[in-house]
Amino acid sequence: MKGSTATLLISCPDQTGLVAKIANFIYSNGGNIIHADQHTDFSADLFLMRVEWQLDGFNLPRDMIAPAFTAIAKPLKATWSVHFSDFVPKIAIWVTKQDHCLLDLLWRQHAKEFNAEIPLIISNHTDLYRVANQFGVEFYHTPVNHDNKIQQEARQLELLREYKIDLVVLAKYMQVLTPDFINFFPNIINIHHSFLPAFAGANPYGRAYDRGVKIIGATAHYITADLDEGPIIEQDVVRVSHRDNVADLIRKGKDLERVVLARAVRLHLQNRILVYGNKTVVFA
Amino acid sequence: MKGSTATLLISCPDQTGLVAKIANFIYSNGGNIIHADQHTDFSADLFLMRVEWQLDGFNLPRDMIAPAFTAIAKPLKATWSVHFSDFVPKIAIWVTKQDHCLLDLLWRQHAKEFNAEIPLIISNHTDLYRVANQFGVEFYHTPVNHDNKIQQEARQLELLREYKIDLVVLAKYMQVLTPDFINFFPNIINIHHSFLPAFAGANPYGRAYDRGVKIIGATAHYITADLDEGPIIEQDVVRVSHRDNVADLIRKGKDLERVVLARAVRLHLQNRILVYGNKTVVFA
Amino acid sequence: MKGSTATLLISCPDQTGLVAKIANFIYSNGGNIIHADQHTDFSADLFLMRVEWQLDGFNLPRDMIAPAFTAIAKPLKATWSVHFSDFVPKIAIWVTKQDHCLLDLLWRQHAKEFNAEIPLIISNHTDLYRVANQFGVEFYHTPVNHDNKIQQEARQLELLREYKIDLVVLAKYMQVLTPDFINFFPNIINIHHSFLPAFAGANPYGRAYDRGVKIIGATAHYITADLDEGPIIEQDVVRVSHRDNVADLIRKGKDLERVVLARAVRLHLQNRILVYGNKTVVFA
Amino acid sequence: MKGSTATLLISCPDQTGLVAKIANFIYSNGGNIIHADQHTDFSADLFLMRVEWQLDGFNLPRDMIAPAFTAIAKPLKATWSVHFSDFVPKIAIWVTKQDHCLLDLLWRQHAKEFNAEIPLIISNHTDLYRVANQFGVEFYHTPVNHDNKIQQEARQLELLREYKIDLVVLAKYMQVLTPDFINFFPNIINIHHSFLPAFAGANPYGRAYDRGVKIIGATAHYITADLDEGPIIEQDVVRVSHRDNVADLIRKGKDLERVVLARAVRLHLQNRILVYGNKTVVFA
Repeated sequence: MKGSTATLLISCPDQTGLVAKIANFIYSNGGNIIHADQHTDFSADLFLMRVEWQLDGFNLPRDMIAPAFTAIAKPLKATWSVHFSDFVPKIAIWVTKQDHCLLDLLWRQHAKEFNAEIPLIISNHTDLYRVANQFGVEFYHTPVNHDNKIQQEARQLELLREYKIDLVVLAKYMQVLTPDFINFFPNIINIHHSFLPAFAGANPYGRAYDRGVKIIGATAHYITADLDEGPIIEQDVVRVSHRDNVADLIRKGKDLERVVLARAVRLHLQNRILVYGNKTVVFA
Repeated sequence: MKGSTATLLISCPDQTGLVAKIANFIYSNGGNIIHADQHTDFSADLFLMRVEWQLDGFNLPRDMIAPAFTAIAKPLKATWSVHFSDFVPKIAIWVTKQDHCLLDLLWRQHAKEFNAEIPLIISNHTDLYRVANQFGVEFYHTPVNHDNKIQQEARQLELLREYKIDLVVLAKYMQVLTPDFINFFPNIINIHHSFLPAFAGANPYGRAYDRGVKIIGATAHYITADLDEGPIIEQDVVRVSHRDNVADLIRKGKDLERVVLARAVRLHLQNRILVYGNKTVVFA
Repeated sequence: MKGSTATLLISCPDQTGLVAKIANFIYSNGGNIIHADQHTDFSADLFLMRVEWQLDGFNLPRDMIAPAFTAIAKPLKATWSVHFSDFVPKIAIWVTKQDHCLLDLLWRQHAKEFNAEIPLIISNHTDLYRVANQFGVEFYHTPVNHDNKIQQEARQLELLREYKIDLVVLAKYMQVLTPDFINFFPNIINIHHSFLPAFAGANPYGRAYDRGVKIIGATAHYITADLDEGPIIEQDVVRVSHRDNVADLIRKGKDLERVVLARAVRLHLQNRILVYGNKTVVFA
Repeated sequence: MKGSTATLLISCPDQTGLVAKIANFIYSNGGNIIHADQHTDFSADLFLMRVEWQLDGFNLPRDMIAPAFTAIAKPLKATWSVHFSDFVPKIAIWVTKQDHCLLDLLWRQHAKEFNAEIPLIISNHTDLYRVANQFGVEFYHTPVNHDNKIQQEARQLELLREYKIDLVVLAKYMQVLTPDFINFFPNIINIHHSFLPAFAGANPYGRAYDRGVKIIGATAHYITADLDEGPIIEQDVVRVSHRDNVADLIRKGKDLERVVLARAVRLHLQNRILVYGNKTVVFA
């Protein structure tokens, strides 16, 4: 077993010596690196890196790591964060009426595929109260409509604070969030039921059927103010044929949606994703 | 071995007894069916079928099949066609500068994967003359520009007639055809270097890179007057990552393009595709 | 909507007129075919067909269909069966300790992806009693060991009879059934956690890891007396890399196992599978 | 543009400070790292890394890099190699009668997908002399049989030396090499026409057909003395159905074989593969 680890995610303008500086910081404090993966985006002249090391034998106390690394990062004009593998993030799952992604996420959490707790489910409908209850998760009904969205979002934000939520997962939450909300709470993963950018917006399966595509897809992405335009984390596809009507596309799509969303959540929880511009680097 | 076969492709408004009528027509003339596949599109109330039978033992002379079947098809308001497996269609391949699809198609024709001849290559550039020459295929240079497209298309149509071409394959032909041309010669398969409807139009790989997608695709479709909007025959995809720059997407895409285009051409040559509305039924 | 349908699955030595005879039988009794798919295996000289028609308007009473069709089938030396879409088969799920396939099947049954009831769960362990209880399904513990397998199988057979079970699904049941049992109750689908025939037998993920494969798979098949050698219904695969240890293979494999098993069960319930020799024809 | 680069591939027993030591070596000599990827195999307690840096600005002359790095590597008990991106390796392609992999490799080399020269083709038959001639590559006929294998291999080794070959690619070479040969020249990539370890040995497509699998595959691996047991570099798969006979499997398999082999050759040429035990780490 590898014990608890720290993970550094960092991006900065490319220059000579970055890997050495980062590795030396860890080595000089007695850390053993167990995963290092680096990428240079030449078109953006950007250095991006994920490095994970064992805390066992690391001489720097946890609360000193960030201050100590700041001294290195500042002259590099770096954007960075440090994460500890024994920290258990809290997820709020937002749903509307469909249960497949919710059930899948809850099942994976139970199966210990996610290093996370799921203390909170928020929905604009009450249909999935029963599922929340069955799994012993708190369920809040925030019936959003055109007129009350601002007030409901205030309530939703309050809940996120109250439950100390680190990550919101929109597991088929069929409402658009306001830019203000996203600004306050930017850590949001959404599953879109199409192979983006194809069929962004509403009713992707109906439109895929009408277009006669031979493959359908699903896309997990971070939410930004532009609907369905946020940084893509993961996508996958499945073949369809003329025999598949819209209901078949929806059924096949559900299998995609839950696995694509689960992969994205897992990558996020393992601190394997670096966002820059409107893109992700996934150190998988 | 199964010997020569006839294949009937038929679509008509759905009603009782269609399979029986078609099967009886074949059986009563001594034909042995070796492939029958039928689909009902309930939303369009449409019956679609492909049936293939051995000509060995079939009592109706070939030139009598169409007239005889007309008597059955007319009251059904059917659209239909009959094809013979020992007829060898003639393909014209249209290219611009990229050779990968052209080489692939020529190689497959040599390897007898296609039941077809390829007597003609047309290009708006001269770069691929060498390839045509190497394979002993006639090459015509029709340098299309904004001003001469109508005249060049007249020349191109003339070549298709002269060489008795049955199918045009746009194997990375980077020019739009006029609606008039498509009207005159509708049997055209194109390969588009994206997963349609994503990235229709120009520069799909550059746009896929900018969007940060995790999967790219290619689409083979019949050409219609609406650019990149014709009935889709086949699609396939490949994973990409942050490590892939635009050149990598182009390289990976080439492998997709050639295999997707080849599959579509083969399906067409085997008379496995029925077009209706803007969709295809592929009896694969 | 298409209403209730009847489905005929038939195989017999190939000869002229088979499609016509079958279609005429349906047409002459007023049935409208909504799906017909036929395959000829030339190496076995075998005709295989699935045909589905609407019972609405079909003049033959249900209990007369089999006797009436016998007159046609007997001279053809055909093996055949007729199934009705409004018949709801009963499934018994057999498990050991792993819950992912069980939960998935139960979820799909709730989501109406399966036209089936699941009244019975049998296990050689008690771990999944809680799941059965939660879904309101009867759970029987039959603790099989080397000494009592015959007696336990007698008890298991009794349960299948008592619950009028039509299909047994081995959803990660880690015990081998005796040939006698399979003889008595042949309708059994198993999920094997490898891409058969690779890694047949025990510990496939460990062996896949040791071999350093770049792709792992899962296989759903009918059970025969030869372990892991029965007719394959469905397979699928997922990429792995050097970063994946055995636990990762198991985790990724679970996602495969449940989707592959679910597809196989659904194909079976829709009467889309014809078994001949040690193979299946899947009229999907 | 990134200019010429050096790539270090290294593996050694895991210990603290390895990334720092390697990165410092490069940084202290003025090198800018453009790709660093590291893996720890905990079950083998092994550290494995690929690091690539720009030679532009690197102060150490090329011929001094290996001696200088030896001082670092020796106390680590490391296995390592350094490669330069502007070195153009020489490939010998070995074939029997099938041309699809050969043509594909030659086409990719022309398309500059490979940073390599292909000066030599060796075959135990003469069928592909024409292809070699067409591409201007030297072709040697070494008609191996049971009695003369030792002598022919001596001749083959001589050719590899004469042409200064760095890599042998068995592009459907249907002969087994002796352990002695492999010992003398270990840098050999083979394409096997199955999803190993399924259908190792002869006639994999016929056996896949008989087994009724729903997916077929191809595997590129390094050759070792154990037939089809060498370290796997890359695999891929394609769906098949009951409609596909053995000839169809062969045809579909060809598309797999050429793309899987090409990917493996490209990964090798980019020095992205580390072999340890009977496995590969592919730093893709």
